[in-house]
Amino acid sequence: MPSYKLTYFDIRAFAEPARLLFHLGGVPYEDVRMPTDDIVPGIQSDAFLALKDKTPFGRFPVLSIDGFDLAQSTAIHRYLARKFGYAGKSPEDEAFADSIVDQVKEYLESFRPLLYAQKSGKPEEEVKRIHDEVYIPVKNLLFKILTRILKESKSEYLVGDGLTWADLVVADHLYSLTNIKELDPEDPIHLNLKKYQERIFNLPELKDYIETRPKRDL
Amino acid sequence: MPSYKLTYFDIRAFAEPARLLFHLGGVPYEDVRMPTDDIVPGIQSDAFLALKDKTPFGRFPVLSIDGFDLAQSTAIHRYLARKFGYAGKSPEDEAFADSIVDQVKEYLESFRPLLYAQKSGKPEEEVKRIHDEVYIPVKNLLFKILTRILKESKSEYLVGDGLTWADLVVADHLYSLTNIKELDPEDPIHLNLKKYQERIFNLPELKDYIETRPKRDL
Repeated sequence: MPSYKLTYFDIRAFAEPARLLFHLGGVPYEDVRMPTDDIVPGIQSDAFLALKDKTPFGRFPVLSIDGFDLAQSTAIHRYLARKFGYAGKSPEDEAFADSIVDQVKEYLESFRPLLYAQKSGKPEEEVKRIHDEVYIPVKNLLFKILTRILKESKSEYLVGDGLTWADLVVADHLYSLTNIKELDPEDPIHLNLKKYQERIFNLPELKDYIETRPKRDL
Repeated sequence: MPSYKLTYFDIRAFAEPARLLFHLGGVPYEDVRMPTDDIVPGIQSDAFLALKDKTPFGRFPVLSIDGFDLAQSTAIHRYLARKFGYAGKSPEDEAFADSIVDQVKEYLESFRPLLYAQKSGKPEEEVKRIHDEVYIPVKNLLFKILTRILKESKSEYLVGDGLTWADLVVADHLYSLTNIKELDPEDPIHLNLKKYQERIFNLPELKDYIETRPKRDL
């Protein structure tokens, strides 16, 4: 078996679907978690900057597979999903899973400005404007798409008749939205997605890891 | 052979790597090109809006494969690349190609604001600020990454010893940059990438199509 090392920060964000895939596959890996302090520009240590400079594209996460360093979270997740049998059962299912993940990535382009606005201490009014005008429309669009896909699905999963990495990417993000109070249990669409997320998190192969992993909002 | 229909606007942008792949594979397809007027919000016809509403995620391009509608350009390109043998020759090569394409997509997040600023008629100073402060740093980073990958490659291609869809995505974008004068022939890094782009465009399977296709800057 190859030797796997996943290097990222001590948060879920862009690495958690990879961690979930290792647990699903029952495959051991080295889970290197750097202090999140290192993310903040200006206070990065020389050691961290030297490490960053050795990554393929100057960014984390990086998955090392017997010395081959792979960058870009989505490429990492797809690679592991295919290795461990969670990429989809036909070329069309694989492509559908890919398209869902890319749709989530497109949505994240409008989620990040909200996080940055909140963290950088912008005035409350400006944060509210970004939340209401930039973020909410794309969140509603994503929720509409996910709801339709789950309704049309022949299984309890997004793609085909079994779990794929698209479920992991989506469920992991829905959990982040729960943590930052962007899922409203009074809204039937939100509640339905929340139930879907909980079904994924309760899968026997994942449950133990999820219950014992470090608690992180994002 | 399946029946393929690609629906997009009458530009290269998010569909051209798919068109190039059909020509590389020598596979016939229906190339539906809608007037670019339809992209501008506010003047979209009822017919166009109805069509858009029928797409998986409300956006184009869409690739229809015997009635299965696939959205998201990158998912479309990867699907065709794998069908026609241009995805990479090993799981690691496939993942490396994926990671390069995702790196280009990340860069495009800073290219689009420049295009929008130019097209929406923002004041010249603001366009220059976005160009110099937002776009140029990410362009330089991408060029540095591509230059290093090509230098370390054992072939004339980005991944492994043969052409992959990553070459098509990168060369197509370098051609766009040539058209909008963002490649400077006096700069050796730019010149080297320009030569790489021309090598790809001169491949016998692509040359005829590229010479006869509709001329579009982007």
